This record gives sequence, structure tokens and C-alpha cells, in this order.
Amino acid sequence: MSEAWEAPLTPTAFLDRSALVFAERTAVIDGDLRFTYRQFHDRCERLAGALIARGVNPGDRVAVLAPNNRIPLEAHNGVPKAAAVLVAMNYRLAPAELAHIVSHSGARTLIYDHMFADVAAALLELVEHEVDAIEANGPGDDYEAMLAAATPAAVPVADERAMLALNYTSGTTGQPKGVIYRHRGAYLNALAGAYHAKLDTSSVFLWTLPMFHCNGWCYTWGVTAAGATHLCLPHVDSSEIWRLMTQEGVTHFNGAPTVLTMVAYDPAAEPVARTIEIATGGAPPSPAILERMAELNMNVTHLYGLTETYGPATICEWQPEWDALPIAEQARVKARQGVGWVTSQPARVVDGAGNDVAPNAEQMGEIALRGNSLMAGYYKDAAATEKAVPDGWFRTGDLAVMHPDGYVEIRDRSKDIIISGGENIASIEVEQTIAGHSAVLEVAVIARPDEKWGEVPVAYVALKPGAAATEVDIIEHVRDRIAHYKAPKSVIFGELPKTSTGKVQKYVLRDGV
Amino acid sequence: MSEAWEAPLTPTAFLDRSALVFAERTAVIDGDLRFTYRQFHDRCERLAGALIARGVNPGDRVAVLAPNNRIPLEAHNGVPKAAAVLVAMNYRLAPAELAHIVSHSGARTLIYDHMFADVAAALLELVEHEVDAIEANGPGDDYEAMLAAATPAAVPVADERAMLALNYTSGTTGQPKGVIYRHRGAYLNALAGAYHAKLDTSSVFLWTLPMFHCNGWCYTWGVTAAGATHLCLPHVDSSEIWRLMTQEGVTHFNGAPTVLTMVAYDPAAEPVARTIEIATGGAPPSPAILERMAELNMNVTHLYGLTETYGPATICEWQPEWDALPIAEQARVKARQGVGWVTSQPARVVDGAGNDVAPNAEQMGEIALRGNSLMAGYYKDAAATEKAVPDGWFRTGDLAVMHPDGYVEIRDRSKDIIISGGENIASIEVEQTIAGHSAVLEVAVIARPDEKWGEVPVAYVALKPGAAATEVDIIEHVRDRIAHYKAPKSVIFGELPKTSTGKVQKYVLRDGV
Repeated sequence: MSEAWEAPLTPTAFLDRSALVFAERTAVIDGDLRFTYRQFHDRCERLAGALIARGVNPGDRVAVLAPNNRIPLEAHNGVPKAAAVLVAMNYRLAPAELAHIVSHSGARTLIYDHMFADVAAALLELVEHEVDAIEANGPGDDYEAMLAAATPAAVPVADERAMLALNYTSGTTGQPKGVIYRHRGAYLNALAGAYHAKLDTSSVFLWTLPMFHCNGWCYTWGVTAAGATHLCLPHVDSSEIWRLMTQEGVTHFNGAPTVLTMVAYDPAAEPVARTIEIATGGAPPSPAILERMAELNMNVTHLYGLTETYGPATICEWQPEWDALPIAEQARVKARQGVGWVTSQPARVVDGAGNDVAPNAEQMGEIALRGNSLMAGYYKDAAATEKAVPDGWFRTGDLAVMHPDGYVEIRDRSKDIIISGGENIASIEVEQTIAGHSAVLEVAVIARPDEKWGEVPVAYVALKPGAAATEVDIIEHVRDRIAHYKAPKSVIFGELPKTSTGKVQKYVLRDGV
Repeated sequence: MSEAWEAPLTPTAFLDRSALVFAERTAVIDGDLRFTYRQFHDRCERLAGALIARGVNPGDRVAVLAPNNRIPLEAHNGVPKAAAVLVAMNYRLAPAELAHIVSHSGARTLIYDHMFADVAAALLELVEHEVDAIEANGPGDDYEAMLAAATPAAVPVADERAMLALNYTSGTTGQPKGVIYRHRGAYLNALAGAYHAKLDTSSVFLWTLPMFHCNGWCYTWGVTAAGATHLCLPHVDSSEIWRLMTQEGVTHFNGAPTVLTMVAYDPAAEPVARTIEIATGGAPPSPAILERMAELNMNVTHLYGLTETYGPATICEWQPEWDALPIAEQARVKARQGVGWVTSQPARVVDGAGNDVAPNAEQMGEIALRGNSLMAGYYKDAAATEKAVPDGWFRTGDLAVMHPDGYVEIRDRSKDIIISGGENIASIEVEQTIAGHSAVLEVAVIARPDEKWGEVPVAYVALKPGAAATEVDIIEHVRDRIAHYKAPKSVIFGELPKTSTGKVQKYVLRDGV
């Protein structure tokens, strides 16, 4: 009866509210630039108006290739305010990979930072359809002039289940898949993030986490919901992080454990006056880092999720009585992926038949998730969607146990993903690239634990009879073709261990690293 | 495409989550009884099972008449888990008023506390349909036996727009109207409340606010969402409040300014060790009380809303720089009703034609609200719904100005409501009751400021020629017919001032009080 006076759930509503409530407070700090919420809102609506004027229609995809500065932040609101779909791209990808994303998403608009002008030029050469490319920053900046000339616009959201964003996976297979986010799911996950982090208008959120990662785990909108300050960080650099923490009064940041390590062991590291709240994910934080962070007066919360779940879906919700545990025990507990967060459905661990495993911390199964912040599917890939969500529950590919207290803990990954510096690397993609080298007979890529990156890829290669290749040859071969961070850190030559049926025994290789 | 794996928004999901995540933590303290979240969840699902076993069908209304103890708290989850609709009734109403609510809502089940056994018996005599009455507490307790014997049940919510609760207004006219709440709106408002109050599992929420008031402003569910402790308070008594604050470590409570006054000036009042967060509403807190609360280390947040908006819809969002203002100035700012809270649409102030007034803190208009937490309408009263929400915006009846910074401030009420001790009293209802006295010719009831209650009703009565009645006669006449708190505190006899068209000039009377 009252749909007429309901409001569709959309994360851009948070910006509208903060522009009203926190009009004169600082919304965005991007280097020397500072924008109030009133200005930030105006800039986002100008971006929407500019996009519409350039021919962007409702539902069109708009790709963004930029570091963590105001460009993607504004796109997170400006693109949806044009009723368009945001495709925030991983700038570490190679031009061919980016071109695939632009082609597959059908984005006809690309906003790129001058920093990536060469990459943008290279990718655009590989895309067959016409793309309206807009350069931001640098000497040839079009972006600011475009905003200045634009008429602000905001297309009302008619359907909260309309597509909001496409986020391309880098994880489960060689070819990235476009994960569909909707307004409703992003609204709810952004609100949950603001709630759990207790963000408010006095918070200063440092953008160590890439905004292209699940839309910055939806904190692009969650920080705005709180009327807090977005403190941009285009390059993750620990001395810059320490400078900003001191000078700008950072209260929160999010990042993979590798970022925490970088911060914790920077020469400038010293205990901070006011506790800094940190959310980490991508890999469990180690006891050593947790201990170190505690010394620095930084409180770490462990989150878990995937691109398919709008970023965080679970939280290692901290029980007050755990404060009394020895630090090593605290770390052991905090390494668990935990329980669904406040807007999530309970996480499950299921066996091959889709039944819950026993909650005994022993029986392994696959983490299965569902709820409002589960993707609406893979873009143009119904078969992959069906495979990933066979029965309404998304199979994460992460093998885990269920503890008796309902907390999930990952024990292994089923899909051969290497997580290096917070980035997912599909071993199969690296293997396929190496296999393309003329001298290679067969190859297996596995993860090696690494103090700095968490994990790094290592390749085991058997060469063709009579063929020759060096470690450097193989690494260069990979770096020429896919993102540099996916290249193996070392290459070991020799025969690969196999099962009687000829399958490579990766676990044997893993035992050797 | 993915509705299949979405979860309908329902506030009972918060209980399900907390039963998993905070299983062994204290959910409810009700006198000597303490229940963990596991137990609380089990009890609520037993209540659902018991109701179903007694013949409650999906959509049936279940009325509750109980003080702030475990009974209404459990009903807030158990009734919706039976797919039924909760009708939490104001226990201060007279039997005839309660009977009207039971009759109008068609509730065929009534759960009542032994404390109100006489009232329940009286109201049941006035209801024409059959009612299954369940007594809780006291010597004839059926409730605990019923739970013990029940099979837990939880009917999945199929539609987040299904009816969750009916809350009867006491404000705008003599006859209460049943405000329809839906699962979706309550979920969002509960989450917003938990966010703004920064509730978490270490919070202890003291139930000074009646749970029958807009379902306790949706904190019945919001406190549960946080895994915090519900500390029941069946009687609002300031020495008991101080005892509980000290012994149970209260962190939060909500209530009308009269409750704050009672707490602040209790003989036991002294500064608390840890800041207590208080949300107040119903009337703006006075400078004196704010100053006193600050001395006691209690932080007051001013909320505003109505039954029609699921309780709070706006918040006087505090800007950090206001901390530097003199206390009197802080109080002046905090008296404003503020801005929409995080899940709300922006509040408007509109003129008679439905256009926004100028945001100049001068032009008066009526506060207009809409959004997900606006009622789905008045139950069985489409005409009243249409009148209250003529154009998709609910007219609150509160006359206000819009400040240049977007904050709303009430300057008068358009509908002659007297707010006494946080309860709305419709002057028209009191007038009609007094007019029923055989000696009364005409009557006008207005509010008189009162130190303890905020406002109290005062009656101006003109007697029929030759007829006689005393002040006590009139007051007793009212007390015999409607809730005692609605009776005038004093009666002044004489001719009523009128306009040339014969309308009583209430403003003249108000000038005299």
C-alpha cells in the first residue's frame, strides 16, 4: 500500500544526507585539495550531469582507472546519480586484462587518472567499441573542466534492485568475471560497515584499501553515511601513512595484513594517542602483527568476504571476555573469519551435497553465503552464476571448519588462489601464461608464504626435451602478458610429482616450500 | 534475478544472529531472571510455537498488555516469528480504550501481565469477539507453563512488506488509530538506532522508555541487533533506576524529558563513572536538565518522531564544534528536532500547499516526513491515511521552522496535543469527555507547562445556565471514563473567549496559564 512513499535503498542517499547534515565538514582530502560535504555532493552531481551530457544513458557502464583519490570517490556517487553502472578497475592489471573488462562490461566511457595515461592508451587500442575517454589530473586534465562546466544532475533511483556496479573478480579462474552489485545490497553493506566500525562525523578514514576492491568494501559509501572524512592515499607508502596519521588524526583504516605489516614496522611507528580502528581481510592477521598493533594502540578487526559478497560478509565479532586471553590466544581466535555481520545471513560451511558440516572445528567444508549483499550474478555469464550459486547459496571456494560457537575458520582454499598483498591471484591463470612459453612442457604454480606479501606465487616448471629457459625468461614472459604482481617470485625447474592418473600433486610441491 | 537468495528485511533476523554470535551473553534481565541470547531466542521461538498451537494464523493480531518486562520483549520476536502481528498496548489506557484497540485490531489473543489482570478482565468484557487470554506472572501464570510445553517455531518471513505490528496512536484525535508497521521499516529503524547510539554487545540498555511506545522506538529490536543487554524496568522509579545504573552498569537509556528530570534530581544522583548515553524525545530537553545531565556525565541526544514514523525519524545530530558553545547555547541548539537520521529521508517543513518553507528559521510550516520507516497506513482507515499522507508526505501536525543549516525546530503544534510525561493527550478527547458531563455547556482544554510532567491538561469550562459542578466533579467524571493521566489537573469555570465566528480562542486561554 505504501510503496509510493518508501525510498528505494541506494547508497547515494547517504551522500545526500551528509551534504545536508554535515555540509561544511570535510568530506574528502586528496593531497592539497579539501572538499566539504556540500562541495563533494556538488562535484558528484556535476559528474552525473557531465556524464549524461556526454551521452551516458541509464544502465550504461562507466569504467574508472584511478588510484585512491577523489576521482573514484566521486565516481562512486556521480556514476549512480547518472543512473549508470560503475566499473572501478584494478589499476595493477595489464592493458589486455583491463581491455577485457572494458569490452566485457561494454563500458563506453572511461575516466582515467593521468598517472595511468599510458595504460589507458594501451587498453583503448585493444577495445573494439568506441570509448569516450576522460583524463583526470595531469597537464591534459579534462575532468575538472568538465565538472566546472556541468549542470548538476541526480536521476532518482526507481528500483533498488537496479545494477549499481560491476566488479571484476581476479580470483577463481583466469578470466575475470563481472560481479553485479545492486543499490540495495550496497546500501545495507555500507550501513553495516559504518555500524561495526562505529564511524561518525569525527572519524577520519584513511584509504589504504583500494577503492576498486569491492568498491572499497562499500566503505566508499559507509564513510560518507557517517559524515566522516575520506582521506585519500594514492600510493600505499608507510611513511606517508604515518605522516597522515599524525597530521590528519586518522581514526580508521582498512587493509590486507600486508598493509598492517608495512605500517607496523615502519621506522616512524610509535604508539598513537587515540586508538586507531583497523579492519583487515584477505588473509588472517598473524599473532606477531596483532601483538605489534596492540603496542601501537591500534585495534584490529578481522573481516572476511569476497567480491561476490560486496566485500565483508563476516566479522570475527570480538567477545569482551577474550580481552583477558594471552595475546597468542587472542591472535588464534582473531584469525577466524567469524560470523555474519549485522546485515548478513549466518555463514554456513557445507559439504559437497550442500549440507552443513558438524560444528566441531574439525569437519571441513566450503563456506557458503547468501543474503542481500550477495551478488545478483555474474554479468553475461549465467552458467558461471549457476555454478557459483547452485542452490541459492554462494560457494566461496574457501574450505573451512565451523567451530562449536558458530565461528567459521578457513583451513584451505579449494580453488588454488594465491593472495599476495591482498590481491587474489589465480594459480591457473599464471600456469596458463607460463604454459604459453615455447620451452615449457608443464607447470604448476603454488603459494609460498612471504613475510611482506603474505603469499607469493612460485612456479614449478618442466621444460620440453631439449628446450631451454631461465628463471628470468619465465618471469619476464609472465610480466609481459599479465599484471606484474602475478609473476612468480621464483621458478624451480624439474619433473612435477603426479598421481597415478597423471594429476599434478600440488600438495607435494607445497610441502617443499 | 537474485531475489531467490536475498533475505527479506525483518527485525527478528537480529535475534537469530545474536543467538548465534552472542549465545552465552546476557540478553534480558527481568528482576531476578536472566536469560542469555540463546535462551531468549529459544523462549521467543517457543512463544511463536505456542501461539501457532493455540490457533494463531499468519496475519492474526496478538495484543500484549504488560509493563516493561520480558513479556513484551519476547512478544516483539515471538509474535512475528509466528507470522502474526504484534499489538503492544499502552497499559495506562482505560479498559474502554483498550477494548477499542482489541476490537479494532481484531486481536483474538491477549497476553497480559498479572499486574493488569483487573484491567484485562474489564476490557475483555467490552470486546464482542472471543479472545484467548494468557496471563503472565503472578499466581495464575499461564505464560511460563505455555513456553515450557511449546515446540519452538519460526515462520520464515516471505515478504518484508508484510505487517509486523499495529501501534495505536494516542495523539491526534480522540479515537486511536492503528498505525501499520512493516518488517522492512522496523529493520531499518532498529539498525539506525543501534548505529546512532553506538550500541554493541557490551552495552546495557535500561528500559525506561515504554516498549509499547512505537515498539520502544524500535530499540526492542535495535538493542538485540547489537547483542546488548535489555535491562527491564517495569516501573519508572528513579531510585530503582539509580540502583540499576550502579549495579548493572547501564550504558544507555531512552525516555521523555520528564524521565530525565526524575533521574537527574533523585537524591541518589551523582556523576557516573562511564558516560551514559541517553536519547530523549517527546519534548525538547530544557537547558537546566541538559546542564544537570552533563554534570552527571550523561550525554543527551534529542530525537524526534511519531508513532507514524516507527518512533525516531530525526536526530539533532551533534556537530563536534558545538561542544565549545556555552551550555545555554548548547541547550538551545539541542532543543531542535534536527535532521533525518541515517536511514531517514530528509525532513521537510511545508506550507499549506505542500511547498517547502524558506529555510530562514522564521517561516512556519508543518513537518512532513516520508521514507521506509513511514507507516504503511492506518489500519482499516483509508480516509485517515489519505488525509495524513495527502501527497506521499506524512503531515506530522507539528508546526516548525527550517533553519538555514537544514535543522528542523518545532515552534508549535497544530493539532492540540498535550504531551504529559511523554504521553500524548489529545485535547479534543478530553474536551469531548468533559462535554459529556450533564452540567457542562462548553469546554476547552489546553496545556499548562509543568515542572514534573512537561505539560498537564487544564480545562476551561462554561456551565449550563442554572447547572452546577465542582472542579472535583469534572476531574472524577474524566477519570471514570478515560485514562487517569488525561484528566485535567485543574478546572477553571467561566465564559470562554471566542472569535466573531464563535470559535474558541485557545490562544487567549494559553496566554493566561
